[in-house]
Amino acid sequence: MVGEPEKQILMVTARTPTNIAVIKYWGKRDETLILPINDSISVTLDPNHLCTTTTVSVSPSFDQDRMWLNGKEISLQGGRFQSCLREIRARAQDVEDKKKGVHIKKEDWQKLHLHIASYNNFPTAAGLASSAAGLACLVFSLAKLMNLKEDNSQLSAIARQGSGSACRSLYGGFVKWVMGKEDNGSDSLAVQLADEKHWDELVIIIAVVSARQKETSSTSGMRDTVETSALIQHRAKEVVPKRVVQMEDAIQNRDFPSFARLACTDSNQFHAVCLDTYPPIFYMNDTSHRIISCVEKWNRAEGTPQVAYTFDAGPNAVMIARNRKTAALLLQRLLYNFPPQSDTDLDSYIIGDKSILKDAGIKDMKDVEALAPPPEVKDNISPTQKSKGDVSYFICTRPGGGPVVLSDETQALLDPLTGLPK
Amino acid sequence: MVGEPEKQILMVTARTPTNIAVIKYWGKRDETLILPINDSISVTLDPNHLCTTTTVSVSPSFDQDRMWLNGKEISLQGGRFQSCLREIRARAQDVEDKKKGVHIKKEDWQKLHLHIASYNNFPTAAGLASSAAGLACLVFSLAKLMNLKEDNSQLSAIARQGSGSACRSLYGGFVKWVMGKEDNGSDSLAVQLADEKHWDELVIIIAVVSARQKETSSTSGMRDTVETSALIQHRAKEVVPKRVVQMEDAIQNRDFPSFARLACTDSNQFHAVCLDTYPPIFYMNDTSHRIISCVEKWNRAEGTPQVAYTFDAGPNAVMIARNRKTAALLLQRLLYNFPPQSDTDLDSYIIGDKSILKDAGIKDMKDVEALAPPPEVKDNISPTQKSKGDVSYFICTRPGGGPVVLSDETQALLDPLTGLPK
Repeated sequence: MVGEPEKQILMVTARTPTNIAVIKYWGKRDETLILPINDSISVTLDPNHLCTTTTVSVSPSFDQDRMWLNGKEISLQGGRFQSCLREIRARAQDVEDKKKGVHIKKEDWQKLHLHIASYNNFPTAAGLASSAAGLACLVFSLAKLMNLKEDNSQLSAIARQGSGSACRSLYGGFVKWVMGKEDNGSDSLAVQLADEKHWDELVIIIAVVSARQKETSSTSGMRDTVETSALIQHRAKEVVPKRVVQMEDAIQNRDFPSFARLACTDSNQFHAVCLDTYPPIFYMNDTSHRIISCVEKWNRAEGTPQVAYTFDAGPNAVMIARNRKTAALLLQRLLYNFPPQSDTDLDSYIIGDKSILKDAGIKDMKDVEALAPPPEVKDNISPTQKSKGDVSYFICTRPGGGPVVLSDETQALLDPLTGLPK
Repeated sequence: MVGEPEKQILMVTARTPTNIAVIKYWGKRDETLILPINDSISVTLDPNHLCTTTTVSVSPSFDQDRMWLNGKEISLQGGRFQSCLREIRARAQDVEDKKKGVHIKKEDWQKLHLHIASYNNFPTAAGLASSAAGLACLVFSLAKLMNLKEDNSQLSAIARQGSGSACRSLYGGFVKWVMGKEDNGSDSLAVQLADEKHWDELVIIIAVVSARQKETSSTSGMRDTVETSALIQHRAKEVVPKRVVQMEDAIQNRDFPSFARLACTDSNQFHAVCLDTYPPIFYMNDTSHRIISCVEKWNRAEGTPQVAYTFDAGPNAVMIARNRKTAALLLQRLLYNFPPQSDTDLDSYIIGDKSILKDAGIKDMKDVEALAPPPEVKDNISPTQKSKGDVSYFICTRPGGGPVVLSDETQALLDPLTGLPK
């Protein structure tokens, strides 16, 4: 590595989205390589509302690999980080930055140390796939820094070894994680089914549900399911393969009724195999159940699905509305059933794309309180049945694009002179 | 029918237990005959705590079939009542009561009308299998009145047509409902695996859980599951047959660890296929989940199961403790986690066999408040986490005997002179 000292820090900053599975990944056939027992399909969420930003940097002055997450230094010693770092360094190429007068030979990457800073624009603990976006962003930004020749699909196979669902965050739009057949995992990677423009009417509303109990981690949860459930192999081998084909068709044809039916039934079946695990795993709670009932009642009343729902390893509901109009009607229903607590202001209760709130004709708390019961609800719900505080907040968003490099240096999370968090 | 007018009412009173399935019945292959898609196994509950008492009577002075449930007249027009009445009348024999000077020829039963009064010694709406005990008692008492030659197993095939799980209430102890193969249902009946004395250490504690939502009836629920679940056929054909054999062995050998494991996993799997139904069915709620967590945590801490749990089509937990000592320890844990509301007295919060409460060293509410956290709970639960009011009450009971005729006429529910409810 040659160059002037003050220019010897090379940096790349990238932004990577989260994703929500509509055909679920649950169960590994290889714990170390993170190889799944079935294909899965996801929708990438708009990174404007939910994303990870990561800056990676290299300098001969760094004496160890270091990482900061949301401003706090964390250990990189975990096997999953180490797998990703090892795989990426093995594929690193020569890097030349003429402007900075820096030249790194590919064999140098084994000796050089990295500084990494990562930031989620949403609460890490809220159960919103922060590890998926985080690992995907780490792999993507390092690949750019080290000038890897691999395309995003090949990078996804590296990200997969950090966190399974991270592989699906290497693309925008609609993404399939192909389980693959090889023992070494080389063919277990993500492919894009369609980009986010293919079906741009969809609107996504996430209910962040307050949880009373600590949840089972998905890593140990899916291990327990594979070891103890009498239903999981039937799901993986008989049920999911058919659903994957049907879901690909539904996405290709923008067939919302099929999309909704498949997303809802597959979410429910994932939670069913969790319940069939011993000891049983409960991710959904009474609030999750009430959200499902609210959506199902409305869909039934309309005669055709207006909204799909899906739940990951936690109580949060991700609802996908067929278009903006139904999203506004959904938001009215959600606010009617789950109004904010009296000390919460509407502006912090509905975040993300607030224009949906405007479409729903809701400007302030008075409008929320004035909401009439939806026609499919026969009796007006008494105020005591309304569940204030059961939902922490809602995020309005949509399907979004894949990882991007942020060339604007002001967005970097590390100081270009010191290589430490800004 | 010949005799003096005031003696022309013939009456039989019988008492029949409820039962709780430990290998679950869920799904019919014939809706009219009520033929199941798999065998099931149940434990009969002590009729001293949970039973139905029914008086059936006949008289030429009755001009129509009439029935009273818990003092209120109800319609007998339902298909299920009619099936049972038709099947029993078809098998009726000559009846002679020399004392009363009554003689009924078997062909007379088609013309004679019945008065029936039934009473549950537990809340009908509490989701405690009242229809199972009720239909079993109706069939059993009518069979005695009409002098049927059929044994209890053959009677169970008649009760089955009233309410599937009713067939298992024709015996005490441990009962198997054999699904049968015949299209006409003649071989779909209950057999006794062991009587209640075979394994008399077991103690049963039922948590009657307060429900916020109206539940899906089991009739429509299981129909929806059979029509929409992608897992139910695998359960019925591949999983349950093995479990039935294992459960028979566990009961035969009084092998509590196997019994508990099978009961818990099969209850969980039944609720899993409910969740895999479309739209999904939720019978358990957050309180049910917390009861399971409490039991699982304790079982894990002890290294071997102390308590099994099972849930029917509702949020109530039925817990089976391996012996009186563990039952007392269980009751302490339940009262620690689910204390009564401040306006509830202990005497109405723990009903049934109150001697368990004494074994647990609990005399009054002060003892409940003084309960220390069980050793497997690391942190003392704060009072706000304790769930006052989430459990309505607990019933302490045990495995019990089958149907009996009550010869003491003072226990009859109908007036012997008028044939109307007392």
